[in-house]
Amino acid sequence: MKFCSLCGNEVSLGVPPGDNRPRYSCARCGTIHYQNPNMVLGTIPVWQNRVLLCRRAIEPRYGYWTLPAGFMENGETTSEGAERETTEEAGARIRIGELFSMIDVPQVQQVHVFFRADMLGPELDPGPESLEAKLFSEEEIPWPEIAFRTVEQTLRWYFEDRRNGSFGTHTGAVRYSRRSGS
Amino acid sequence: MKFCSLCGNEVSLGVPPGDNRPRYSCARCGTIHYQNPNMVLGTIPVWQNRVLLCRRAIEPRYGYWTLPAGFMENGETTSEGAERETTEEAGARIRIGELFSMIDVPQVQQVHVFFRADMLGPELDPGPESLEAKLFSEEEIPWPEIAFRTVEQTLRWYFEDRRNGSFGTHTGAVRYSRRSGS
Ligand SMILES: [Zn+2]
Ligand SMILES: [Zn+2]
Repeated sequence: MKFCSLCGNEVSLGVPPGDNRPRYSCARCGTIHYQNPNMVLGTIPVWQNRVLLCRRAIEPRYGYWTLPAGFMENGETTSEGAERETTEEAGARIRIGELFSMIDVPQVQQVHVFFRADMLGPELDPGPESLEAKLFSEEEIPWPEIAFRTVEQTLRWYFEDRRNGSFGTHTGAVRYSRRSGS
Repeated sequence: MKFCSLCGNEVSLGVPPGDNRPRYSCARCGTIHYQNPNMVLGTIPVWQNRVLLCRRAIEPRYGYWTLPAGFMENGETTSEGAERETTEEAGARIRIGELFSMIDVPQVQQVHVFFRADMLGPELDPGPESLEAKLFSEEEIPWPEIAFRTVEQTLRWYFEDRRNGSFGTHTGAVRYSRRSGS
C-alpha cells in the first residue's frame, strides 16, 4: 500500500495513537487503512456416500483437486458464500448443512471454513475455475493431488467422523503452505 | 474507494472479465481491489461459574457491556486473536478453549467468532477500550445493556448449554443491527 484509497495522498506506516501495531495512515484526510485476514468458504458436498471435488483450472495449484471453496464476498453470510462457491465451481445443487471445520492459515492471512452439504442430485456443471468436477468414494480420493492442506485436513476429519457415525465441528491451524497457497 | 492504493491513479467500478460482480479496479496498474468481510474474535471467559464482561469505553455502544472481542489482525490465528483481545480489553489471563459460536452479520460485512475460555485467576486490568471489567453470574447479566446482538446470542447459547451439561458449537446470523454496530 502506497496511496490513500480515499484521497490519493501518499500513506505512511506508523503506530497510530492508542494503537499498538503499525498501520498505513493518511496525513491529509486522516484515514487509517486497516488490513485484516480474509475468509475462504467451502463445502463438503456429498451424493450417495461420494464426495465432490473440483480440479482447479486456475493458479495457485492448477490441475490439483479441491473441495469447492472461495473468498467470502461482502453482503453474504458464511453459508451463503459456501453455497455460492459450490454452484460457481461445480454447478452442484446442494442443501447446506452444519459448520464442519474452521482452519487458520496465518501465513497467508486466511481462515478457511467448510460446511457439510447434501447434494440434491448427481448433476454437475463445472464453471470456468474448474477443469472438471467429479464424485469420489473415500478409496478413490487422490490424496497426493489435493490442492490445499486445509482441504486435505477437512477431508480426513470428514471420513473419520463418518466412520465414527457422528459429525462434529473441527478447528485447527496450518502453519506452513504446500507451495504458494495453503 | 476512489484511488488505487498501489499507484495512486483513480479507480473505476465495473465487473472485471471472468467475474460476476462490480469491483474497483485501476486502469493504470491493472490491480483489482477486492473488498471482503472482516472477522471479529472474542472469548467467553469464565471464573468460578461467572462470566467476564467489559463495559465499552468506545463507540459504537459506549457504556454498554460486551464479551471481550475485536477485529482479527494479520498474522494471527483466530484463537490467538481472541486471546489477545481478552488481554487487551480486560487484562484477564485465560486458557483458550473450544470454538463456541460463529455468527454472520452480513449488513456490516462481519463474522463474529467466540471461543470458550477458562480464566486462570480473578484478577482484571481493563485496558483503554473498557470503562470496567467485571464477573457476572447468569442472574446478574445486564441483558438490556448488552452491546451487540452477537454477544447476547452467544451468552444465551452459553448458559443454555451449561444448564444442559454439554457445550456445542453454534452458528447463526444477525440480520439487522441494534444501532450502529451489530
Ligand atoms: Zn487520504
Ligand atoms: Zn493502480
